[in-house]
This record gives sequence, structure tokens and C-alpha cells, in this order.
Amino acid sequence: MNEAITTMLNHRSIRHFKDEQLSDDQIKTIVACAQAASTSSFIQAYSIIGIKDKEKKRKLAEIAGNQEYVARNGHLFVFCADLSRHEYIGKMEGKDVLASIESTEKFMVALIDATLAAQNAAIAAESMGLGICYIGGIRNNLEGVKELLKTPERVIPLFGMTVGYPEKINDQKPRLPFEHLYHEEEYEQDQEVYLRQLQEYNQLISNYYVERTSGKRKDTWTEQMGNMLEKQTRMYMKEFVQKNKMDLR
Amino acid sequence: MNEAITTMLNHRSIRHFKDEQLSDDQIKTIVACAQAASTSSFIQAYSIIGIKDKEKKRKLAEIAGNQEYVARNGHLFVFCADLSRHEYIGKMEGKDVLASIESTEKFMVALIDATLAAQNAAIAAESMGLGICYIGGIRNNLEGVKELLKTPERVIPLFGMTVGYPEKINDQKPRLPFEHLYHEEEYEQDQEVYLRQLQEYNQLISNYYVERTSGKRKDTWTEQMGNMLEKQTRMYMKEFVQKNKMDLR
Repeated sequence: MNEAITTMLNHRSIRHFKDEQLSDDQIKTIVACAQAASTSSFIQAYSIIGIKDKEKKRKLAEIAGNQEYVARNGHLFVFCADLSRHEYIGKMEGKDVLASIESTEKFMVALIDATLAAQNAAIAAESMGLGICYIGGIRNNLEGVKELLKTPERVIPLFGMTVGYPEKINDQKPRLPFEHLYHEEEYEQDQEVYLRQLQEYNQLISNYYVERTSGKRKDTWTEQMGNMLEKQTRMYMKEFVQKNKMDLR
Repeated sequence: MNEAITTMLNHRSIRHFKDEQLSDDQIKTIVACAQAASTSSFIQAYSIIGIKDKEKKRKLAEIAGNQEYVARNGHLFVFCADLSRHEYIGKMEGKDVLASIESTEKFMVALIDATLAAQNAAIAAESMGLGICYIGGIRNNLEGVKELLKTPERVIPLFGMTVGYPEKINDQKPRLPFEHLYHEEEYEQDQEVYLRQLQEYNQLISNYYVERTSGKRKDTWTEQMGNMLEKQTRMYMKEFVQKNKMDLR
């Protein structure tokens, strides 16, 4: 097992950071790794915004549901799907690129590009002994984020990433069984197998909570998911995305 | 610079593989790394399909535009956004989760989850001395992919990833300038700065091609992008995604 693999298998989200800022060199290395990731047909359809300003961080922490670690960390990155650059290029080159960049296909490409870059950034940070946490919570209010970070049309802030020196390290939650997540040759067709795998996983997750909470919590994974998904959250997203001229056709 | 960072900075897409198959242990390690990636609220909204069957690979290679390396490699993964599992969970738990899983927000979550996992898989493979290439080309015909891999509704195959022992190693293409991709505190507001950065990058890319093709090719990045985006490709995607009951509301 090499260092990169050990780093990845050791991943856990860090939600308590020391109040020590990343150096500019650290930030540059993290972004260089992000940029080295694959990009669909060389399109590079994303941007990264780095935030040091305390007031801005505090406002983003509020948007993300008052999560303290969004304000207190070593650095805060925001990863954005970005096709604004390509609209600009269309004008530069005198090419009509609008149908293309407003398509669902290119919306997907931009999301994928931004996320490939982000995960490289995460591994880079973790390999340096830093901790990270993805902040999907910024999607609670993307109008607010847009205003704060002055992102133009055709840019969708997707998630934040807090990076810093860990103050408290959490346990790792067991993932879905390999056989359930990984299908051979074709998607699993046997519903009985599928159900049994979920039930086995439920037992594993329930035991995990029982052990860690001295029995106070014992919910299964499917219970957790059912409860979470019953609530309708961020239902404004379609409107926001389309107002920003992505995923339109 | 540690091993993980060296691995990432050394990334290039590999398009020629030896005809040597990955071992089951290698596949398991790669998938374990994929699964160790962050997942939004523990939702794990993706699946991976591994393909060894030569006939299936050949058909996928055809779909991807007759790319030989999709058929000849050490292993082929297909990464899918997957909310089918969560529809199933809704039924198991007697919860109405449909509005949630049909939202644009959850479509984005599933895409992001699948991509975080994929990039960990890529780094894991590369750290073992293997090469990888993302195969966005499977999106040329997702109906065909769906039929071949028997994916149910609410599953979108996003991209393939060929993995294997490199036979030929390409050069790395220089990425957008750090200052252009990475914004401090807010998105770059100065259009002159923005344009100058693109022009500098154009020069860099043009020189790159001139050097490597003995002057036969000298196109800039914005030229390349303008030409590519002028063509409307995969415009059926919105319909396909919505027919598979994602990104509906």
C-alpha cells in the first residue's frame, strides 16, 4: 500500500480546525494538483475561489447552516462550475457557442470538471497532513453566495472545501458493501441480492452508532436516508441554475 | 513534495495500454479508494460497473467513437450517478422521497458523488503505476450504454475510465494560468486582466503545439474551444436525463 492509497483510505471529514492559516505555497500546491486533474476535452470548465477574509467566511458559515468550521479553518476554497469563460471565448473567436454551453451535457461536464479538480485538492491537502471538509451547505442559498463572491452568469458555486490543521479527528463511517456498490459486467438485476446487501449494511451502520453513542443512537442507513430524503431541500436549485443559463436545453 | 502530490502532478491521460488485465486485488483497492471519498450527507448516490467482457468493451469502444483503448486496456470502469437505490429505500422505509430524488439538487449531488469517487479511483490507479483515461465518449449514446449495462431508471452512466499498464506515455498539456483559474476573495471583475490571462495562455498552448508537431499545428486554446463549442454535441442529454427521472424539478 503506497502513500497515496493510505491517504485516501484514511480520509475522514474534519470539522474542527486550529486557527492557523495555510501558507501561499500550500495553497498553490493544492491548486496545482486540482488543475492537474483530467478535464473533459481540455475544456477546464471550472473556477476556484479562495477565501481568507474573516467576514466573508463568517457569512458563508451562516449560509451553510451556522457551521463554525466554515468560519474557523486554515483556508476556504469554493469550487464553481464555470462556463462564463467559454461564453467570453465565443465572443473572442466570433463563434456561436451558446446552444452548446447552455446544454445539459455541458452543465454535466462543468460539474464533473470542477469535482475532479476538487478531489485532487482534497487528496493534496490530506497528503500534507491537513484535514478537509466539503461544504455542500453553501447550496442552501446560492443567491447569497453569488452576491458575496460576485460570480457572473454561467457560474454555479457547487461546494466549499475547508482545509486546515485538524484539532479533532472523527471516526470513519463504513461505506456501502463493495458488492453492492460495484457491479460486474452489468447492473445488479437480482432484487433479493440487492435487498440483502442493504440489510447487511444497515446492521453494520446501526452497530457503528450503538458503539459510538453507548446505545443512544442505533438508526440504520436506509432509515437515515429515508428521513433525509423525505424532506425536500434546496428545491430552488433548478430555477437558480437555469437563471444562470446552464442546463437549459 | 510527497508521493500523492507527485502522482497527481504527473497525471496525463493514457491512450495506449498493454493487453494485461488488472488483478481482482487491484480492482478492489481502486474501488475501496473510490468509496473512501467524501459523499454528500452520506448519501452514496453512485454505482460503479466494472467490465472485463471483451465483447462489451468493444461495443462501448464503438459508442465512444471507435476509440481502441476503450476495448484494449487492463480494466474498464463505468461510473454512474445513482438515485435508483434511494427510490428503493423510499419503498423500504415507507417514505415519499420522489420529489427529493427528482430534484436538480439531488441530480447535482449524484454527479458530484460519482465524480469524487472516480477521481480517487484515478489517483489510486496512478499511484500503483497504472495509467488511466476518462471516457466521456460513452455519453455519445447513453441509450446504448444503458441497454448494454442494464442500468435501471434513475441511473445515469456518466463516464468510463480505462485503467491499465501504459504502453505509450503522452506529454502533459499546460493548464490555464493559476491566476486565471484561482480567484482571491471574489470572482475576477477586471475584464482586461481576464483577457490578458487568456491571451498569455493562448501563446503558451500555441507554442506547445508548434514544438510537438514541428509547426504543423499552432492553434490557441480559445480557438480550440471556440471550434469545439460551436458544434452542438450530445444535445439529447436533457431528454435522456429527464426520461430517467432525474433533474426534473
